[in-house]
Amino acid sequence: MNLAKVLGTVVSTQKEESLKGLKFLLLGQVDTNGALTGGIVVAADAVGAGVGEMVMYATGSSARQTRFTDKRPCDAVVMGIVDSWEIEGEELYKKGERE
Amino acid sequence: MNLAKVLGTVVSTQKEESLKGLKFLLLGQVDTNGALTGGIVVAADAVGAGVGEMVMYATGSSARQTRFTDKRPCDAVVMGIVDSWEIEGEELYKKGERE
Amino acid sequence: MNLAKVLGTVVSTQKEESLKGLKFLLLGQVDTNGALTGGIVVAADAVGAGVGEMVMYATGSSARQTRFTDKRPCDAVVMGIVDSWEIEGEELYKKGERE
Amino acid sequence: MNLAKVLGTVVSTQKEESLKGLKFLLLGQVDTNGALTGGIVVAADAVGAGVGEMVMYATGSSARQTRFTDKRPCDAVVMGIVDSWEIEGEELYKKGERE
Amino acid sequence: MNLAKVLGTVVSTQKEESLKGLKFLLLGQVDTNGALTGGIVVAADAVGAGVGEMVMYATGSSARQTRFTDKRPCDAVVMGIVDSWEIEGEELYKKGERE
Repeated sequence: MNLAKVLGTVVSTQKEESLKGLKFLLLGQVDTNGALTGGIVVAADAVGAGVGEMVMYATGSSARQTRFTDKRPCDAVVMGIVDSWEIEGEELYKKGERE
Repeated sequence: MNLAKVLGTVVSTQKEESLKGLKFLLLGQVDTNGALTGGIVVAADAVGAGVGEMVMYATGSSARQTRFTDKRPCDAVVMGIVDSWEIEGEELYKKGERE
Repeated sequence: MNLAKVLGTVVSTQKEESLKGLKFLLLGQVDTNGALTGGIVVAADAVGAGVGEMVMYATGSSARQTRFTDKRPCDAVVMGIVDSWEIEGEELYKKGERE
Repeated sequence: MNLAKVLGTVVSTQKEESLKGLKFLLLGQVDTNGALTGGIVVAADAVGAGVGEMVMYATGSSARQTRFTDKRPCDAVVMGIVDSWEIEGEELYKKGERE
Repeated sequence: MNLAKVLGTVVSTQKEESLKGLKFLLLGQVDTNGALTGGIVVAADAVGAGVGEMVMYATGSSARQTRFTDKRPCDAVVMGIVDSWEIEGEELYKKGERE
């Protein structure tokens, strides 16, 4: 999975039938400090993530295997809202402090 | 999925049997402002997207699971025409205004 | 899929049993003008493409689903010989004119 | 697979149901000298790797096929703790000496 | 598939059960001249490749479909030892001459 920040939402009315009902989030990939690296991805939301939150998302066939995306042709899904991460014992990100 | 702009079309007469009948679009990847980043991809069209429209496309095995591409050896498919996207409440792209 | 130019061929005598009989082409990825970008890939040939031709190739599990590669452990296959592509109505590549 | 160093851990309470119970490690990709290249990935741990250890991790559908991740929607898993690697007979990394 | 040079070997004692018995090679990706590009990958060996040889390797789900890796969670496998490759009729690599 990759770390990303939820930047916002993408609206698409005319879309593949089987994707209807899913919410699509615009994610910005981040580095270990939580800074945006420039890479973006559009991911379905499996956990109710909000704008500004740090998340981890999966790509590829795993993206079709959550409760929300089961058998739907998704290739990227937000799998979890990140509370914190630490590197060698130092907490580099903690939700609520660095968003 | 990724965001892209439909740049044009690709014509291929001599192709794998199972791809016949599909329309292939030439897509240019875009950043959050809708500006082209230089990356391109050839994707089958599952939604009737037109040149100049912003779309979201999926890659990998999900690309074989739309109505149009079911079980065909596609690895990239346009899944939706994008109406708009917003970042932290600001609309950065809206169809008809920034194409 | 991606656009590429057929640069040449790769010969491998000692190879995985199930790949025997396939022809392997060395492809160079191209940009929208048909210029090489530096990226290369070795792909099985499903359409009889020749050196110098522009092609589109697929990667991943779709590469195992053509007549020639069915169930063989391929991860890249030339799916079609490209006749032409156009961007916003302008033909940027036409076979026989820009090779 | 890729070589990486275990940088730390990622905590996510609100996550896809089927991922519960897995430990997520923050990995930093390394070059042949074991130096960090800047790329990061969040991987489930199938082998009990600790912070500072060099590991090899797999991505894609293989990540759902270990004892710990069987059928769970993972796209990256630590598959082994690396003891050493050598290039043309020279040992460039040995566990315990270069961490 | 991609072209790479076998740089050396990776030793991992503590690893996912189902990977035991496989030999892991450290590969360096090469360009059309056979020069290293800096990219590396750890691949299982399906053909008995030796250090210094040029090989082609596959990634993704195809990597689980050779005699040696059948159903094992591999994501990269050396599929063939390369004898030679040529570009537009010129032989840019021939085994035994440029290693």
